[in-house]
Amino acid sequence: MSTVSLALDPADPRPLYRQLCDLLAEAIGRGELLPGARLLSERDLAAQLGLSRTTIVNGYRELEARGLVRGHIGRGTFICAPSAPDEVPPAWRGKIALAAQRTSDPALHALVRQPGAETISFAPGSAALDLFPLEHFRALTDAVLRRDPAALALGPTEGQPALRRALAARYRVRPEEVLVLAGAQQGIDLLARCLIDPGDAVVLDRPGYLGAIQTFRGAGARIVGWSVEDGALDELEDAILRYRPKFLYTNPTFQNPTGRTLATELRRDLLELAARYRLPIIEDATYQELGFADPPPPPLRELDRHGLVIGINTFSKTLAPGLRLGWLIAPAAVIQQLALIKARADVFSPGLTQLVVAELLAGRRYDEHLRQLRGEHARRQGAMLDALRRDLPSGALVTTAHRGGLYLWCRLGGEANARELLTAAAAAGVLFVPGEAFYPDDGGKHELRLCFSGTPPERIAEGVRRLGSLLAAGPAIRQTQALGRQPII
Amino acid sequence: MSTVSLALDPADPRPLYRQLCDLLAEAIGRGELLPGARLLSERDLAAQLGLSRTTIVNGYRELEARGLVRGHIGRGTFICAPSAPDEVPPAWRGKIALAAQRTSDPALHALVRQPGAETISFAPGSAALDLFPLEHFRALTDAVLRRDPAALALGPTEGQPALRRALAARYRVRPEEVLVLAGAQQGIDLLARCLIDPGDAVVLDRPGYLGAIQTFRGAGARIVGWSVEDGALDELEDAILRYRPKFLYTNPTFQNPTGRTLATELRRDLLELAARYRLPIIEDATYQELGFADPPPPPLRELDRHGLVIGINTFSKTLAPGLRLGWLIAPAAVIQQLALIKARADVFSPGLTQLVVAELLAGRRYDEHLRQLRGEHARRQGAMLDALRRDLPSGALVTTAHRGGLYLWCRLGGEANARELLTAAAAAGVLFVPGEAFYPDDGGKHELRLCFSGTPPERIAEGVRRLGSLLAAGPAIRQTQALGRQPII
Repeated sequence: MSTVSLALDPADPRPLYRQLCDLLAEAIGRGELLPGARLLSERDLAAQLGLSRTTIVNGYRELEARGLVRGHIGRGTFICAPSAPDEVPPAWRGKIALAAQRTSDPALHALVRQPGAETISFAPGSAALDLFPLEHFRALTDAVLRRDPAALALGPTEGQPALRRALAARYRVRPEEVLVLAGAQQGIDLLARCLIDPGDAVVLDRPGYLGAIQTFRGAGARIVGWSVEDGALDELEDAILRYRPKFLYTNPTFQNPTGRTLATELRRDLLELAARYRLPIIEDATYQELGFADPPPPPLRELDRHGLVIGINTFSKTLAPGLRLGWLIAPAAVIQQLALIKARADVFSPGLTQLVVAELLAGRRYDEHLRQLRGEHARRQGAMLDALRRDLPSGALVTTAHRGGLYLWCRLGGEANARELLTAAAAAGVLFVPGEAFYPDDGGKHELRLCFSGTPPERIAEGVRRLGSLLAAGPAIRQTQALGRQPII
Repeated sequence: MSTVSLALDPADPRPLYRQLCDLLAEAIGRGELLPGARLLSERDLAAQLGLSRTTIVNGYRELEARGLVRGHIGRGTFICAPSAPDEVPPAWRGKIALAAQRTSDPALHALVRQPGAETISFAPGSAALDLFPLEHFRALTDAVLRRDPAALALGPTEGQPALRRALAARYRVRPEEVLVLAGAQQGIDLLARCLIDPGDAVVLDRPGYLGAIQTFRGAGARIVGWSVEDGALDELEDAILRYRPKFLYTNPTFQNPTGRTLATELRRDLLELAARYRLPIIEDATYQELGFADPPPPPLRELDRHGLVIGINTFSKTLAPGLRLGWLIAPAAVIQQLALIKARADVFSPGLTQLVVAELLAGRRYDEHLRQLRGEHARRQGAMLDALRRDLPSGALVTTAHRGGLYLWCRLGGEANARELLTAAAAAGVLFVPGEAFYPDDGGKHELRLCFSGTPPERIAEGVRRLGSLLAAGPAIRQTQALGRQPII
């Protein structure tokens, strides 16, 4: 709770206990106090705030009445998992579908929750958004709005022709092979809806992208992890033979979460193996253009000679996540099929952003921006590595840096558990993603992902300092509760 | 083919047959030539264009090679259903999931396809987009981009707090009861994913909104139609007892497609019945604010005292469909559950549009705009009714006008089939939606929906004239083929 601001205001008409309750409720809402975290004892908080113990007791009672915390005699008061079954009106209780019950993991959802200004978050995968070419974007937006009625009108499900053409030209495919998406995650979701029957197996990088794991699990897939290492094709062939997977999902370039890149030769071998077994590949190429210096190996899709590979990509990491704009490259017939599913999901994506980004791609500004982004990301990775070396106890956290992408994948020393560390870290004002989220099984307990690119260097240093204090203190706030993943209604 | 522009250019480097083929392929792509339509005979087209018959024969052959048409000896050349199974690479064949196989109806998708400039479309449900407050919207967009980093950053899945607050204030609920959507269709899709297990029954207006029918069918629901007429509650109670439906989906105000509005007393009786059986209601309130003059009865959600009703709404019909912005009002726990599903679908909706519309709602401009829209829609409905009376053979098309919404629901006289008429109409440059699309069963063959609000009065008159000529000609181009609804891959 050290960074949670509890500035009570005597001029406020609400009683003090109520102000306290509201401030804590807001901090819980912002994710500064995570489920399982213990609040300060009533006595300690009273002393810290200079208030009577009764005020604190009443504030905690009110929080408990709102279902936000639960007190355990002798152990303290803990933040509850976000679930409020008693508020569900009778008509809606117990109505939830099986597929939705598989979709109750809030990890993806929590990543986009805005933390308080005091919190330093290494959790979401953010590029250096401060480099976004805002002036240029504003001018293009205004010009498109003034000129092109397609910006606001009904638009084709497949995407604005201008953007499909621009993407087709850039990636050397035909416009009919391009589907415009509301971000890469929509591509993963559409493909899951198109391809997965409950019980189907799919193979996925282990560790791999948490959005894909959750989406495929939500669709009822059995997820078979594949350790993406040189020479790991035997393991993949075993998985193909044993589970007959519907497809392989992989993120071969500056991978999320590890940052690793598959070598060109391994890519060719992988494609040969996939062709032999007619195994479709979904290639998440989100980080393909985010190498710091030398370009990475070509994407699988470009090396593919058998129409095996669907490429998913997004402008979320190269321009801005708030654009919600991605794309997918696939054989034209697959695009047609996916468009029918997208028509049901959101009918079509907004025209304005598509037309603006099509203009941006047409000029040189986008490639210039990518160059600046790469340089800044390299600088921020350096800043984080320096800070980790400087401010962390030796051996507390081990990482290997790669020359691209947005992430450092770290292993905690000793028996330290990343989810427990996160609970303490959130209270200390620093966030990351615990490794568990990237494993389809129960791996990753001692690993975590730090995103270096979304935070300016000074703030990186401060965030790492906060982590360092926690790790130096050793097993600090460890008294956490198991998190339920139950449906809410 | 009368309105399909076949202007061949002798200066074009492509041979004439190839130009002809490309022009026809583009017209098929734009939906001016619908599947099942017959092309002019080679002899007639040659005469019309002043070309050799060989050129036409070669052009048609090329179209056939591309899988766009099929020739039947003695009957002519017909446009094929959009399906290209032979282009699917082997790895992707036969991989499609059962749920996606239920989602192969292109009707919703086809509605957003942009017709050629010559075509007059009464098909999509469009408001008078030409009244959109573009200057004001441009100014707000620029101001938000300049001022608010939330416009481009990661944002909360539930929606921008400013927009949730603005909607909550307008509709007198709490912000936690509001979920921001990428249009009303996304709300329908999220609710289907949240609530429907394959085999579940759901009750739906008959006729009812085609997007809901397709989405619930795609989710594997058994759809029970309910004829929304005064005194129809017995039929609903029968359906509840017989099928134990998961929920009722209804659009009680200026309904899509019929334009009808449920009276307040019937609303109260409906809610009482639903409460007795704990039947949740999804109320599509898309047209609630689009009455021409007197306000319609309050939405079910406002009359509800048992937390039965979830309200879905959108800015697509009051501002612009290209914004892709809607919202849903539900108990807070239901919102939390739906947000977990939305997190998987598209993570969150773009910040910029949300913040701009929040500003628009804060001022008086939105309500002023609604007033203008209502007046213009009344005028356009009048123009369409006048044209129908003037230019259609007596008894060829019967309709009842209601004082709001966007649609005229029409019944064709005699044995005329609306889908066959559409095939001929598309060739004559006028589009509508055949009634079948609005029925969960095989009803609606002789009905059709005309949207009056999206077309200026002079174009309405011209479109109705084109329809009138077809209906006067009687059973004209009737030689159509059954449409397959097979998966594409």
